Amino acid sequence: MTRSDATDLLLVAKKDKGLSFRDIATILGRDKVWVAAAFMGQATLSVEEAERLSELLGVAPDVTLPLQEPPLKGALDSTVPVDPLIYRFHEITQVYGTAMKAVIHEMFGDGIMSAIDFEIDIQKKADPKGDRVIVTYSGKFLPYRKW
Amino acid sequence: MTRSDATDLLLVAKKDKGLSFRDIATILGRDKVWVAAAFMGQATLSVEEAERLSELLGVAPDVTLPLQEPPLKGALDSTVPVDPLIYRFHEITQVYGTAMKAVIHEMFGDGIMSAIDFEIDIQKKADPKGDRVIVTYSGKFLPYRKW
Amino acid sequence: MTRSDATDLLLVAKKDKGLSFRDIATILGRDKVWVAAAFMGQATLSVEEAERLSELLGVAPDVTLPLQEPPLKGALDSTVPVDPLIYRFHEITQVYGTAMKAVIHEMFGDGIMSAIDFEIDIQKKADPKGDRVIVTYSGKFLPYRKW
Amino acid sequence: MTRSDATDLLLVAKKDKGLSFRDIATILGRDKVWVAAAFMGQATLSVEEAERLSELLGVAPDVTLPLQEPPLKGALDSTVPVDPLIYRFHEITQVYGTAMKAVIHEMFGDGIMSAIDFEIDIQKKADPKGDRVIVTYSGKFLPYRKW
Amino acid sequence: MTRSDATDLLLVAKKDKGLSFRDIATILGRDKVWVAAAFMGQATLSVEEAERLSELLGVAPDVTLPLQEPPLKGALDSTVPVDPLIYRFHEITQVYGTAMKAVIHEMFGDGIMSAIDFEIDIQKKADPKGDRVIVTYSGKFLPYRKW
Amino acid sequence: MTRSDATDLLLVAKKDKGLSFRDIATILGRDKVWVAAAFMGQATLSVEEAERLSELLGVAPDVTLPLQEPPLKGALDSTVPVDPLIYRFHEITQVYGTAMKAVIHEMFGDGIMSAIDFEIDIQKKADPKGDRVIVTYSGKFLPYRKW
Amino acid sequence: MTRSDATDLLLVAKKDKGLSFRDIATILGRDKVWVAAAFMGQATLSVEEAERLSELLGVAPDVTLPLQEPPLKGALDSTVPVDPLIYRFHEITQVYGTAMKAVIHEMFGDGIMSAIDFEIDIQKKADPKGDRVIVTYSGKFLPYRKW
Amino acid sequence: MTRSDATDLLLVAKKDKGLSFRDIATILGRDKVWVAAAFMGQATLSVEEAERLSELLGVAPDVTLPLQEPPLKGALDSTVPVDPLIYRFHEITQVYGTAMKAVIHEMFGDGIMSAIDFEIDIQKKADPKGDRVIVTYSGKFLPYRKW
Amino acid sequence: MTRSDATDLLLVAKKDKGLSFRDIATILGRDKVWVAAAFMGQATLSVEEAERLSELLGVAPDVTLPLQEPPLKGALDSTVPVDPLIYRFHEITQVYGTAMKAVIHEMFGDGIMSAIDFEIDIQKKADPKGDRVIVTYSGKFLPYRKW
Amino acid sequence: MTRSDATDLLLVAKKDKGLSFRDIATILGRDKVWVAAAFMGQATLSVEEAERLSELLGVAPDVTLPLQEPPLKGALDSTVPVDPLIYRFHEITQVYGTAMKAVIHEMFGDGIMSAIDFEIDIQKKADPKGDRVIVTYSGKFLPYRKW
Repeated sequence: MTRSDATDLLLVAKKDKGLSFRDIATILGRDKVWVAAAFMGQATLSVEEAERLSELLGVAPDVTLPLQEPPLKGALDSTVPVDPLIYRFHEITQVYGTAMKAVIHEMFGDGIMSAIDFEIDIQKKADPKGDRVIVTYSGKFLPYRKW
Repeated sequence: MTRSDATDLLLVAKKDKGLSFRDIATILGRDKVWVAAAFMGQATLSVEEAERLSELLGVAPDVTLPLQEPPLKGALDSTVPVDPLIYRFHEITQVYGTAMKAVIHEMFGDGIMSAIDFEIDIQKKADPKGDRVIVTYSGKFLPYRKW
Repeated sequence: MTRSDATDLLLVAKKDKGLSFRDIATILGRDKVWVAAAFMGQATLSVEEAERLSELLGVAPDVTLPLQEPPLKGALDSTVPVDPLIYRFHEITQVYGTAMKAVIHEMFGDGIMSAIDFEIDIQKKADPKGDRVIVTYSGKFLPYRKW
Repeated sequence: MTRSDATDLLLVAKKDKGLSFRDIATILGRDKVWVAAAFMGQATLSVEEAERLSELLGVAPDVTLPLQEPPLKGALDSTVPVDPLIYRFHEITQVYGTAMKAVIHEMFGDGIMSAIDFEIDIQKKADPKGDRVIVTYSGKFLPYRKW
Repeated sequence: MTRSDATDLLLVAKKDKGLSFRDIATILGRDKVWVAAAFMGQATLSVEEAERLSELLGVAPDVTLPLQEPPLKGALDSTVPVDPLIYRFHEITQVYGTAMKAVIHEMFGDGIMSAIDFEIDIQKKADPKGDRVIVTYSGKFLPYRKW
Repeated sequence: MTRSDATDLLLVAKKDKGLSFRDIATILGRDKVWVAAAFMGQATLSVEEAERLSELLGVAPDVTLPLQEPPLKGALDSTVPVDPLIYRFHEITQVYGTAMKAVIHEMFGDGIMSAIDFEIDIQKKADPKGDRVIVTYSGKFLPYRKW
Repeated sequence: MTRSDATDLLLVAKKDKGLSFRDIATILGRDKVWVAAAFMGQATLSVEEAERLSELLGVAPDVTLPLQEPPLKGALDSTVPVDPLIYRFHEITQVYGTAMKAVIHEMFGDGIMSAIDFEIDIQKKADPKGDRVIVTYSGKFLPYRKW
Repeated sequence: MTRSDATDLLLVAKKDKGLSFRDIATILGRDKVWVAAAFMGQATLSVEEAERLSELLGVAPDVTLPLQEPPLKGALDSTVPVDPLIYRFHEITQVYGTAMKAVIHEMFGDGIMSAIDFEIDIQKKADPKGDRVIVTYSGKFLPYRKW
Repeated sequence: MTRSDATDLLLVAKKDKGLSFRDIATILGRDKVWVAAAFMGQATLSVEEAERLSELLGVAPDVTLPLQEPPLKGALDSTVPVDPLIYRFHEITQVYGTAMKAVIHEMFGDGIMSAIDFEIDIQKKADPKGDRVIVTYSGKFLPYRKW
Repeated sequence: MTRSDATDLLLVAKKDKGLSFRDIATILGRDKVWVAAAFMGQATLSVEEAERLSELLGVAPDVTLPLQEPPLKGALDSTVPVDPLIYRFHEITQVYGTAMKAVIHEMFGDGIMSAIDFEIDIQKKADPKGDRVIVTYSGKFLPYRKW
């Protein structure tokens, strides 16, 4: 079973059980974005997480086996995504990338925000002019090593 | 004077005055990321903002003229940025894009987070294991219109 | 069943029933372009729309199930389409994009035409020198938020 | 003088005179989008149009000379534009291109909408929920010749 | 049956019957290049043409059904073709494209040669130094509309 | 002087003298397309041709010196040309390339049409429904050598 | 049977029979590189060559049928090959291409080395410091036709 | 002085002196292709070679200084060269690359032909049917190291 | 059996046996990185190595057959890898490539580090601030041949 | 002064002083590769390092000013480098990337080798069969954070 097959089976089982990523996250003790990433083959489950997930979704344990291996990450086919929701994240990098770089260097010095020691949080903020999507990235600052 | 020349002159003047983006933002009554974006030619200043900025930096007013025109946005040369700090934002979209899409659709339905009715906030969070960069995107949710 | 399989089955059923997109649009209370977009996996049907569509086309309801999920949008394989009809839209953007940008900024200020809060209408206009295709885009103007 | 230099000079002169594309279009007896396209080096002026334009803008006639030659068309540097306003037109082609193709073939048969015997109109439509940009393409239908 | 499957079946049947594109063209009352284009899924057959073709090749009529639908045109996988025969056409455009543009504008004014109201003819011209391939394009001149 | 500078100077001189490519071709005893190609830096002039050209255009002989060197050929910046006139030639290759290949192999066997032992002719054919551009390629057939 | 399937079957049969390309070349009266190219689907066999090959390899004659059709040539998936042996040929073109062009023009005038009326020879040259691969290209010089 | 400037100056001086690459090669005791490669900035001269070259061409010694530094190699702008002479080498790799790989592995085992411990020779071979360009690559065979 | 199928089967068998690349390397008398490369289809096994491997993993000998053929090397689908672990190696080349080139030329002269006569070693170095990955490349220096 | 200008000036000054990267590294108390990276605009100098460097090279202090700003990193123009020395690093990633990934995950679990908390060392290892280039990467292992 490929990881992509596992993704498809898990998404079907999730739908059949009527569970949201939030529900599953609560049960696994993880965040909903991380759980979605694991479903999409972008994060690695522990044995315990895999067992709990297979029970929860009622799938054979081997369906969750591929999710226990460090995956070949990268869930998109092309470097410029076409899907409008995903493209907006690309656009933000293209338009505001140099500004964020300038501000982060001003605040932290030369280095980067880690995308590995890293978390994403997504919240809905009610607003009379239209609800807002609040996406928060939290990454460890890694200063460049000089040698 | 091209917009790119204006960017160069403003960055030099800012350095000569010893001002940070945060300082300028406080004086203009704007956020430091928005100010950096305006410097980089990715946002449009009002006449008043341009005048205050030229006074503050001690540059001839015509230096800030190009920043009052809606710019041809996009500050990066290539679709896959090489600079490691900027690349990490690209990587986040590539690795977590489908997971963020799944979670946003689950929370909001079919639509997108606007990158136009949109703000970025960047904060430093002290952490004994290493300070963290906290980047927050706040974009209005735009549901797909059906017609 | 993948969304692409669903598209194929729906197009076959539509052909077998001898229905046009316009016919289906009238019955669903939607526009023919939106219906075509939904067939092509680019828009999301409500449960009621999906039920009415499966009855109308005489297909099992599960064929229309994938169309109820927010799709991974983008119906073309390549960024420069080869098909001459679709390429002409690409050409218009390449040739007239900067002119449309200049005019829209002159009329509306800095911002964009939304492609989400957005409709397309297509009409035939008789003309003795050759009928004309009239394509009308109607998108909400979104001004850039300053923060 | 290159065509790109001419574009720059004309835009500066237009700004100095405080003229909009609409103003110039009225005087030339042309549409504002076509005038903007001519400024951007995407359309060819007649001798009379060039003379009237140079008088109107107070520029030496040779500034408008390059605009009388059929230009090497294409005003964008890259096939996937980054500027958000222009990108939305690209996105519309990517997302709705196959649907527009299906509907146009259903209405007109096998052929294309010409991008040469072609006009663009841009209007503002007031809307309490936010003004709308109305872009209308009118292109002659060209059926495929069979031979 | 996909259009690509139809292409394969038709080519096999043509080979089994020992027919050339020229033979089929004579019977259909069409040109050999157009017939080859139709086989390759680049042109649309009428019902009568499809019936005559299926009889002639001894294939079930549904094999020719896909050829009656306006196809998603474009028979090559990549924008720079590798096959030497096809590449030479690409090379001609790359090397002589600007010269042909200059000459056509000199002869016809600003406009294009249509690739839709368009025919291709291919002939063999005997030559003692080596036979020559004569490829003739005939396309309607379309002047740019000014509006 | 670069070849590109020479091209610019020659085009200006040609315009000042009010000469067409056809006029120059008649005087040089060459075809108008070949002359245009030489102007564009895609063909090599003999010493005599260069001298006659510099006299005719009233330019210093060294302007035509670079045209006597075998050039680095290829007059377009990108593999997919944007200019609509030139793009149509690209489209013809993309849409009809496989059909032309099939017909040429049927008529000549395995081999190619040379783009080196090659000529282009362009004519205007009056037509009440709109004049037609007739472009004729004549290339020597080169059979594949087997060894 | 696709040409790619034929390639796979022929390579297996060749391995089972323990034959080298050199062995087969000797029997067919052809060169080993040409035979390898034919196996890879890059050259066209005559009927006699195909029959002798099918006997020699003990495969059904229809396995060699596709090799009798002029193939869609081009055996690599990408324009920059990754395989180190093949990449080195790409590197030679990238590094020494302009030098070879300058020398060939100096020796032959403006024209090219044909890749159609063309042969490749590969030999091993013993050398105490390490054997050398000797690859010889022999292509007819084609001078540019002037017209 | 950049290496590219040096290339231009050397080519002009070579032309003024009426020297061929072959002449220079004889004097330097090197091959004409290597000399052309050095001119094009693809090989490194020793101090002695640089001195002899500057005397021979009558240029100031600092013109040949950049040629004494290991260059950033790669003389072409794009991975798919457009110039027909250079493209043919690309085509040979694309069409015959897998065949050459198969034959070299059969003759030498797993490894590559070095493009570093490597020579190119170019000769003219008279042929009544048209002179032939003979290009010979001689590269050391490098077997893969197993560890 | 394709090489890719063999890779999949070997990885499953390795997992079932609970063997690490290090274990297998010890038994084969090879390094763990080389063994992993062989599994991934990037190195060639001898007959003995293949036999020992098939016994060790309990797979039919023909599973290891494809690994005895020189493979078409290159284990990644795209030139810019998305997987973060692999991308970091790409980033190192992009950021430090010119520095490594300058230092290697300073130490060795004009030439390259072979990637064929080449070994990779990977070690873990304990560090209280976080373990370090130590990757060592050892490649033979190949000086450019002058001829 | 741009960073690229600074790079050029520093390299000239280094050459004029007859200093190697190793010499400068010893004086600055840094490694030769890091110093070369700083010269190439890929690392950030402290004020003290910049002062010592300007004294050492005898350049005006403002030449080293740009090297004190966090640079827009990435020293190569294209994602697939053509220069053979740099390309080999690209090839190693393409050929051995998946093997290194498998081995690193086996030794460390899911995570990456940092390219930020990272050092490069380059040594020459004498070898009778040819000196070897030893390149050692030392990067902190960063495990994926689960949240």
